[in-house]
Amino acid sequence: MINWNNLDTLKSFQKLKDAKHIDLVKAMSGENGAERVGKYSVPMAEGMVYNYAAKEIDDDILSTLAELAEEAQLADKFKALYEGEVVNTGEKRMVLHQLTRGQLGKDVIADGVNKREFYLTEQKRIAEFAGKVHSGEIANAAGEKFTTVVQIGIGGSDLGPRAMYLALENWAKKHDTFKMEAKFISNVDPDDASAVLNSIDVAHSLFILVSKSGTTLETLTNQSFVMDALKKAGLNPAKHMIAVTSETSPLAHSDDFITAFYMDDYIGGRYSSTSGVGGAVLSLAFGPEVFAAFLDGAAAEDKLAANRDLFKNPSMLDALIGVYERNVLGYPSTTVLPYSQALNRFPAHLQQLDMESNGKSVNRFGEPIDYVTGPVIFGEPGTNGQHSFYQLLHQGTDIVPLQFIGFRNSQLENDVDIQGSTSQQKLCANVVAQIVAFACGKTDENLNKNFKGGRPSSIIIGDEVDPKTLGALLAHFENKVMFQGFVWNINSFDQEGVQLGKTLAKKVLAHETEGALTAYSRLFNI
Amino acid sequence: MINWNNLDTLKSFQKLKDAKHIDLVKAMSGENGAERVGKYSVPMAEGMVYNYAAKEIDDDILSTLAELAEEAQLADKFKALYEGEVVNTGEKRMVLHQLTRGQLGKDVIADGVNKREFYLTEQKRIAEFAGKVHSGEIANAAGEKFTTVVQIGIGGSDLGPRAMYLALENWAKKHDTFKMEAKFISNVDPDDASAVLNSIDVAHSLFILVSKSGTTLETLTNQSFVMDALKKAGLNPAKHMIAVTSETSPLAHSDDFITAFYMDDYIGGRYSSTSGVGGAVLSLAFGPEVFAAFLDGAAAEDKLAANRDLFKNPSMLDALIGVYERNVLGYPSTTVLPYSQALNRFPAHLQQLDMESNGKSVNRFGEPIDYVTGPVIFGEPGTNGQHSFYQLLHQGTDIVPLQFIGFRNSQLENDVDIQGSTSQQKLCANVVAQIVAFACGKTDENLNKNFKGGRPSSIIIGDEVDPKTLGALLAHFENKVMFQGFVWNINSFDQEGVQLGKTLAKKVLAHETEGALTAYSRLFNI
Repeated sequence: MINWNNLDTLKSFQKLKDAKHIDLVKAMSGENGAERVGKYSVPMAEGMVYNYAAKEIDDDILSTLAELAEEAQLADKFKALYEGEVVNTGEKRMVLHQLTRGQLGKDVIADGVNKREFYLTEQKRIAEFAGKVHSGEIANAAGEKFTTVVQIGIGGSDLGPRAMYLALENWAKKHDTFKMEAKFISNVDPDDASAVLNSIDVAHSLFILVSKSGTTLETLTNQSFVMDALKKAGLNPAKHMIAVTSETSPLAHSDDFITAFYMDDYIGGRYSSTSGVGGAVLSLAFGPEVFAAFLDGAAAEDKLAANRDLFKNPSMLDALIGVYERNVLGYPSTTVLPYSQALNRFPAHLQQLDMESNGKSVNRFGEPIDYVTGPVIFGEPGTNGQHSFYQLLHQGTDIVPLQFIGFRNSQLENDVDIQGSTSQQKLCANVVAQIVAFACGKTDENLNKNFKGGRPSSIIIGDEVDPKTLGALLAHFENKVMFQGFVWNINSFDQEGVQLGKTLAKKVLAHETEGALTAYSRLFNI
Repeated sequence: MINWNNLDTLKSFQKLKDAKHIDLVKAMSGENGAERVGKYSVPMAEGMVYNYAAKEIDDDILSTLAELAEEAQLADKFKALYEGEVVNTGEKRMVLHQLTRGQLGKDVIADGVNKREFYLTEQKRIAEFAGKVHSGEIANAAGEKFTTVVQIGIGGSDLGPRAMYLALENWAKKHDTFKMEAKFISNVDPDDASAVLNSIDVAHSLFILVSKSGTTLETLTNQSFVMDALKKAGLNPAKHMIAVTSETSPLAHSDDFITAFYMDDYIGGRYSSTSGVGGAVLSLAFGPEVFAAFLDGAAAEDKLAANRDLFKNPSMLDALIGVYERNVLGYPSTTVLPYSQALNRFPAHLQQLDMESNGKSVNRFGEPIDYVTGPVIFGEPGTNGQHSFYQLLHQGTDIVPLQFIGFRNSQLENDVDIQGSTSQQKLCANVVAQIVAFACGKTDENLNKNFKGGRPSSIIIGDEVDPKTLGALLAHFENKVMFQGFVWNINSFDQEGVQLGKTLAKKVLAHETEGALTAYSRLFNI
């Protein structure tokens, strides 16, 4: 029997609030620090580890977090989710994105369909389609191969797939699996579509229109933009465009597309990178085998997330430490800092994943709650961030928990030795140095050069950004966000907060406004 | 006589803390809201306006902010700064970036040199050099024109120039002033340099090495990377590379470069976009006239910042409202949301500008302070953000002040009419709708669909992102950050918080570590 209770009703949460805080500077200094680095580490999938030595935890706090995991029934709730319970209470929907990459429990039947089989079928259809595009069996009107793929989508149809594409672009080039360049059009700003269209050869471009509902205004507008460009070039838009949508959308079974691939309402936009939303563009760009490996990595990480033992479940542990930082220590934001240029846009994806899922003020039953939920998430790749906003992280008046991500090897394996070390070694040395600098600080009589330390971080370490590790990383954060939503007793799978803006924008365009809306509209001459 | 006092010693700050808070929902609803939109607006340079109607202010609070501006002597402090007082107390340096684009007060002489003349001379030298590159007078060994310019720099040598390049790239193409494509190498991750080098024709590429000190490890490492690539292609690196540095740096007067352009210690990295750091790459990419127009816009905005009347000084007003939000209302972060794809990376630049300048815990005399300083800054372009993290902004448990930026016209003027409106009209309608949605909210019995409102924003509105408006925007935020630093009585012009990480990274590379540093190094096999 699963109980959905607010965090502040749980005994273990009261205990957590009463637990003695640790002195991170002391804990991470000297041999004690080295011991913690060895001890506070949990394996992730694909040879990665989640190391939480530099977090403000000790054995006492960890055991209370384990009690909280039990009391909040996190493992049971995850099991209920992947076995098809209607966890998205707001929209009365199942939450099935894990099924796009594996099956952890019993079959899930919805609308009379085995959903795992449905997602697998779509993956296979995409693989076959991609194969035909790569072989030239599906080609443009002149019988020439498509060389570029352009994804038209916004939010979850853009950020995740774009981040994944950028993460694997150089890896694929290095491993001779790079098939087609991908571009992305998202913003309703006409300069976005115009600039992308100016940069490509439309006659050799295949467009993927991605909208689950088939009604996303930005995406439909950009579809028209692209169709205009194709027509102006004397091309038939229907021969240059595919759709990724739900079977009930206006885009399904339409003559406007070469074909359509399907997802459904059980996969939220921000959780859709492992569905056809990511699958079409990644399979076309890198080949279906690369996309399959990406799914394997995600599935392997999902398996760990199903573990009932907190200390063998990296995403659950990450989630609970985050709750401790947010609800006990009171930190309002978290920064994601990948020491990898390939993960350039990974923080932007996590920003949506986390803030759209857990930026909520009511519980899953629509009742107000009396504690804070999702933090602000932001980040840029290291070492760039070091030369930008790290000043505030080191010496600012607020503490911002840090999530580092680092890899032992570069993707392209092209490197130079300068001053006795390679660039990759310098990159790794920097992230190591930062963890300790943030945790331990350094005393200086000149307070302007003094570092108080006590700034907590964790790090995920792997060998290389490749399809499997990337899939595992993605699933880790998806599951972390899910577990935090369970702890906060909120619905992490709807997004009612985006509706009001849409409604008012329509009123502005229809000139059905008054008051401030009219006054601002006049400033824009609309 | 200027007094540098801590914020919490000022009478007007006590008064501000005691001021009655406003009810933003009520204030912005109905005709009262329309009246505020008309009233709470101040002209910026280049036809732009800063509208603060949707901030949590009223006439009472504004008059107290005006008292605070007086008591903190903000106008006097700015005057002292631009006339050469040693405002950067930590490093004992003047702060002269405004002189790169104009002169507001008396001549500034440093090291026996008239600094305005020095910066102008460098700008002219860059313009002449760019002209010769464009004409082919300066060319590669085969006498062929350079077609690509690659900036090698990190932090302020990367984020600002990159954001400005991206902001004007399409504008320049539209206005036939686009001369050369620009690329940027910043990260010490070897995959960054490798990917850029793989994407260009090195034989026709001109590289700009940017480092004020000439000792930035990432930049020197990437220089070697590029030199290796040039040598492997059988080219002479010294014929493909220029430097932007200080006259005292090891890069100055070196045979490794075609030529060098100079800045000095009075221009901080994050304030250097209007110096040669931005000037070389922007003049080469778009022509010196475009860079000169960009400087004109910045100079025009600086003039407004010198205004003693708070209500005619948009950056001072923006700064003080931010202080009210941070130190009285207690909001820990601010988000920057340009409704313009051209300003894609402008938030990343502002993130450095603001967080590196004002993320400080000691005052300008090195004494601890008892109030919070710079907030976390993050942002992405709208409408993309609407489909990402806006959920938390609308319905999350924390309030995040919003800085919108919008323009009446697109850059490329290529648009489509869908459902009775153009994309540009949709873009503008969305930002208008968001301001009111955040401020006023909407009551719903289903609390999951309820919007409390009361979420403050301001908006900067202009006609178009062009060189002049971009320069004015940049200067607005530089001056806002400066005024906030004055109010907090901190030094916004040093960055001691980045030093410890550098020192420890060197130790890691030299294997001179113990404890946690050694333990983490082992995890990375370094």
